[in-house]
Order: sequence, then structure tokens, then C-alpha cells
Amino acid sequence: MTSPVTLYVCKTCRRPEEPSEPREERSGARLAQALAAAAAEAPGVQVVPVECLSVCKRPVTIGFAAPGKWTYVYGDFSEVGPEAASRILAAAGQYAAAPDGLIPWKERPDALKKGVVARIPPLPTLAEAAE
Amino acid sequence: MTSPVTLYVCKTCRRPEEPSEPREERSGARLAQALAAAAAEAPGVQVVPVECLSVCKRPVTIGFAAPGKWTYVYGDFSEVGPEAASRILAAAGQYAAAPDGLIPWKERPDALKKGVVARIPPLPTLAEAAE
Repeated sequence: MTSPVTLYVCKTCRRPEEPSEPREERSGARLAQALAAAAAEAPGVQVVPVECLSVCKRPVTIGFAAPGKWTYVYGDFSEVGPEAASRILAAAGQYAAAPDGLIPWKERPDALKKGVVARIPPLPTLAEAAE
Repeated sequence: MTSPVTLYVCKTCRRPEEPSEPREERSGARLAQALAAAAAEAPGVQVVPVECLSVCKRPVTIGFAAPGKWTYVYGDFSEVGPEAASRILAAAGQYAAAPDGLIPWKERPDALKKGVVARIPPLPTLAEAAE
């Protein structure tokens, strides 16, 4: 039993050489579309496009989050087609399977090893917060 | 009425010129100590030292989080004494006062403007997740 995973993807991200308009052709928007299409095959992963994850220098940026787990932010996704989407969803599956969200280093895809931007612990529980 | 804020601080962060040992003298550990001391004056802010926020190239790294709000990660805190801690706690207070966690740009301290590493939306509610 794994918990549902939220997969954030910045739909505003664009590579430096890309024009700003049309916005739906930016790398981020294209990856968001590819992920949404591929997610039909990935129950338990909810793809949530986001206006900005504030990592504009490392397009495209994504994030994994789930209740009680570490949140991870990754950047540098230069490929935005169906194959890239499948690889990202497979990684989201690894995240879903990890009780604390920490995918063991040896099992981590290279894109996650090289692309990590930040990680944030799960919020303390009320009991911990009261300590 | 503001919600409680969790203030993460990486206690492992060190500047390139700093020795690895003793670990309690690293910039991150020193900032964590300063924040813990100053937090006695900041009810509603819980300081949580963390082993690593995976932003090793931008020491020291901190994060703001609260239920239902955007999570923010900031780096480049080179000052780690009592005054720096006071400024960070004041910013945490601004975060606490912002319903969604977004401090208006004009009110944002320079350290937050320049130091932003990433931001992550609040997790979708169960109702949203079921849509």
C-alpha cells in the first residue's frame, strides 16, 4: 500500500532559447501536458501544473510531495516528451513506494541524482510541535 | 490569528572555506543555535534543525513551512549570528501573517528576494485530489 503522490510541474518554465509566447509551447507546459497524458496509466499520482516553483534557472522543474514524506524539488528536465514523462512517472512510483519519500541512492535515476534542487522534511506532527 | 510556522535550518551547511569538523562550528549549526535561542522570543515559530536540505552549494539554507501554505526554501545566508537570526525570525513572522505564505514582494527582505531556492504549493486537499 502506497500513499498518493502529488507530482508538481512548472508550466511556466522555458529554456533560454525559447520564446515566451505562446505559453503553451514552453517546455514546462509541454512537459505538463505529457505528464497529464501519461498519468492516466499511473494511478496514485496526481499531476498538478504550477505557475512557478521559483527555480527559473533550471528548467523544467518538477516536485514530488505526499503527506508525511519529504518533499523533493528537481530541475534540469530538458526532455519534455512522452518518454521523459514516463521516466518521471516511474520515479514518482519509486517515491510513492518509499515510506519517507527517500528513494535509495543506488535506485535513484540519474536525472534525480543530478537534478536535485532542494528537499524539505514533512511537517512535524502536532504532537512533535507541542514538545 | 496566524498559523504556527516551521522554520527549517540546515545544520550541516558549511561555507567552502570552513573545516568539516567540528560539526557544531559549521555555519549551519551556528545559525541553528542562534535561531533556537532567538525563537524563545517568537511564539508560533518552531525551529527545526535538519541534517540536509540538499542545497549544499548555497549555505546556509533555511525553509519556511506551515499547513496549507506554500513552502519556501532560501539559501545564501552567510551571516549566522544573533542579528541574522532576528532578521530570519522577523521574516518568519511575515510568512506566518500571509494566509498563503506569499510575502508581498515589496515587503520581502532582500535576503529572501535574492536567496530563493524553490517554493512548493501546499498539498491539495482530499477534495481537490478527488477531482
